[in-house]
Amino acid sequence: MGFITTKQRARDVLFWPGMNKQIEKMIISVRYCTSTEVQPSRMTDSKNDEHEKDNRFVVKLKNPHLKTMTEDVLYHFTLSTSTHDLQDMFGDVKFVCCSGSPKRIAVFAEYIRDELSIKLPVGCTLENIANKTDRYALYKIGPVLAVSHGMGMPSVSIMLHEILKLVYYAKCKDVTFIRIGTSGGIGLDAGTVVVSDKVVDGRFRPVFEVPILGKVVARPAILHPQIANDLLHCKKPDDVFKIVVGTTMCTLDFYEGQARVDGAFCNYTEQDKKEFLQSAYAQGVRNMEMESLCFAATLHHADIKCAVVCVTLLDRMHGDQISMSHDEYEEFQVRPQRVVARFMRRKLRLGSQASCDE
Amino acid sequence: MGFITTKQRARDVLFWPGMNKQIEKMIISVRYCTSTEVQPSRMTDSKNDEHEKDNRFVVKLKNPHLKTMTEDVLYHFTLSTSTHDLQDMFGDVKFVCCSGSPKRIAVFAEYIRDELSIKLPVGCTLENIANKTDRYALYKIGPVLAVSHGMGMPSVSIMLHEILKLVYYAKCKDVTFIRIGTSGGIGLDAGTVVVSDKVVDGRFRPVFEVPILGKVVARPAILHPQIANDLLHCKKPDDVFKIVVGTTMCTLDFYEGQARVDGAFCNYTEQDKKEFLQSAYAQGVRNMEMESLCFAATLHHADIKCAVVCVTLLDRMHGDQISMSHDEYEEFQVRPQRVVARFMRRKLRLGSQASCDE
Repeated sequence: MGFITTKQRARDVLFWPGMNKQIEKMIISVRYCTSTEVQPSRMTDSKNDEHEKDNRFVVKLKNPHLKTMTEDVLYHFTLSTSTHDLQDMFGDVKFVCCSGSPKRIAVFAEYIRDELSIKLPVGCTLENIANKTDRYALYKIGPVLAVSHGMGMPSVSIMLHEILKLVYYAKCKDVTFIRIGTSGGIGLDAGTVVVSDKVVDGRFRPVFEVPILGKVVARPAILHPQIANDLLHCKKPDDVFKIVVGTTMCTLDFYEGQARVDGAFCNYTEQDKKEFLQSAYAQGVRNMEMESLCFAATLHHADIKCAVVCVTLLDRMHGDQISMSHDEYEEFQVRPQRVVARFMRRKLRLGSQASCDE
Repeated sequence: MGFITTKQRARDVLFWPGMNKQIEKMIISVRYCTSTEVQPSRMTDSKNDEHEKDNRFVVKLKNPHLKTMTEDVLYHFTLSTSTHDLQDMFGDVKFVCCSGSPKRIAVFAEYIRDELSIKLPVGCTLENIANKTDRYALYKIGPVLAVSHGMGMPSVSIMLHEILKLVYYAKCKDVTFIRIGTSGGIGLDAGTVVVSDKVVDGRFRPVFEVPILGKVVARPAILHPQIANDLLHCKKPDDVFKIVVGTTMCTLDFYEGQARVDGAFCNYTEQDKKEFLQSAYAQGVRNMEMESLCFAATLHHADIKCAVVCVTLLDRMHGDQISMSHDEYEEFQVRPQRVVARFMRRKLRLGSQASCDE
């Protein structure tokens, strides 16, 4: 039974103010929980009491200190457990979609509102929830959180620590994180959408290293294979772009780290660069960016499903400089968003009436 | 001879439109070039022909590829050598001041405009030069560039590669880069201004590591001792805050990387954390942040003088959470800006008439 039928049947029996919104929320929630494709994530700890059984999909965090804190300030989002009812605000979140740029995430939020047919009260618009800071931008669109993460892994790391705490305090269940980004392609036409099956660092190692208390801790960067597969199958025959699966190389630097010769420094030749990129291609690398390694490793460590979907802005086999028209850039950026929108619609079991892209 | 006297004398002889602005620009330029405190930076290469002798203070870059490029797009700033006359726009830049937040750098730009008595034509205001993107914000205030760099070293790295190319194409001479930031203090009252004399990573090593073509390259992170000393001497007796010199620890992560117990993960105790912070203190570390190591190493590699000046927002010996009033936060943030403004005024030999803070 869809949105419209349910609302009509309910209205035949009883009317109450805000009933439409509540019914939509309930349908989305029920559809998501009963979706056969949504599998339980790996469990954080081995406690198996009754309470845990009931809450086996709830986000858990490996930090015993959190339970001893009377207040937790999510500093970079200007949110706090003492000033905000995080469960009330975010308890229904099922997807966290992340992109680098605050402007891009704002556009994505509006796009997803249309795609998921989220109705806002008349006279209302989406608002950046973190608008008291300019560190990150945060939007909520029904069951979707959309958050910007800036450029580079440290910036992603801060965002993830705080958004993980947010979904933890909100007692969210069965959450999926998806990074939607831009990247440099390796042997792919510009505008190709790459769904990552593996993430490696600048030395081809699938681990994210964090020095903790002076010692390096290496965390495996592991993406969820089923979600990658589901995303790949969001391809449609009339798409003007390709969707491919490949390894993503995640670097600490955009220029030398990605073998570009057009940075402020370069002490290698075009030939050295070519050999490095060819070696990367031979090892399955199809694109390069600067965030996915921390993203995959941090979410795997938190036992939360995640995926990385990036569009390529150029083929690095043929150059280093990104120079395209504004319109082309805008159109490329929307491609991975469209794929993710289709994926979320399927997970939420929304019918075709809600979208022109389904 | 100051601004006012020079303008009066010139006006006695001749008047031309825009003369005030031109005279101010000339005075600033002459003062800077004749300043005894501004010493030549280390030289990049050993070419010693006549041209090089004349241009020994000009920014040079260790990248032979740049001279072969017909166009260079500074992608993250939406500037290009083919669409912008970078020398005309930026040739007079002497200082590049950097902060994480775009909003903070905008406020700093206005503050510096007042402090350096930069007059704009009537009806004009400062504009974000990079306003076609939201990756970074960029302002020019007379001889000062003010640029945001986001959070974390990879974000700083992209900014530095492109701004170094900008000052290189602009043929800027004798440029100094200063990072003005916020940090967590170690054994210092919140609100203390720390001028870094040394920068170390999360393992106490004064090097910045970048994987290039699959191999780790370690670059020494070295700050300019004279500038650090000059900044320290910008202390004034009636300042309500302290300025101290100390080592800055620069980490890849805000939570576990800085021994916080309030992140999404923590597998160590309060005691472990305390011991780590005490060990850091014993090794001279007085504050922690996430940008200075890349900043110092990259600029040292480019043979450009640099300094790092950060205010502490809390004493990490007493806690992890940053929670202060908005007003207090604003006032703290301005402290390192004030110190840097005094430093630049002295270098530019501006008299006290231009500022209420000198």
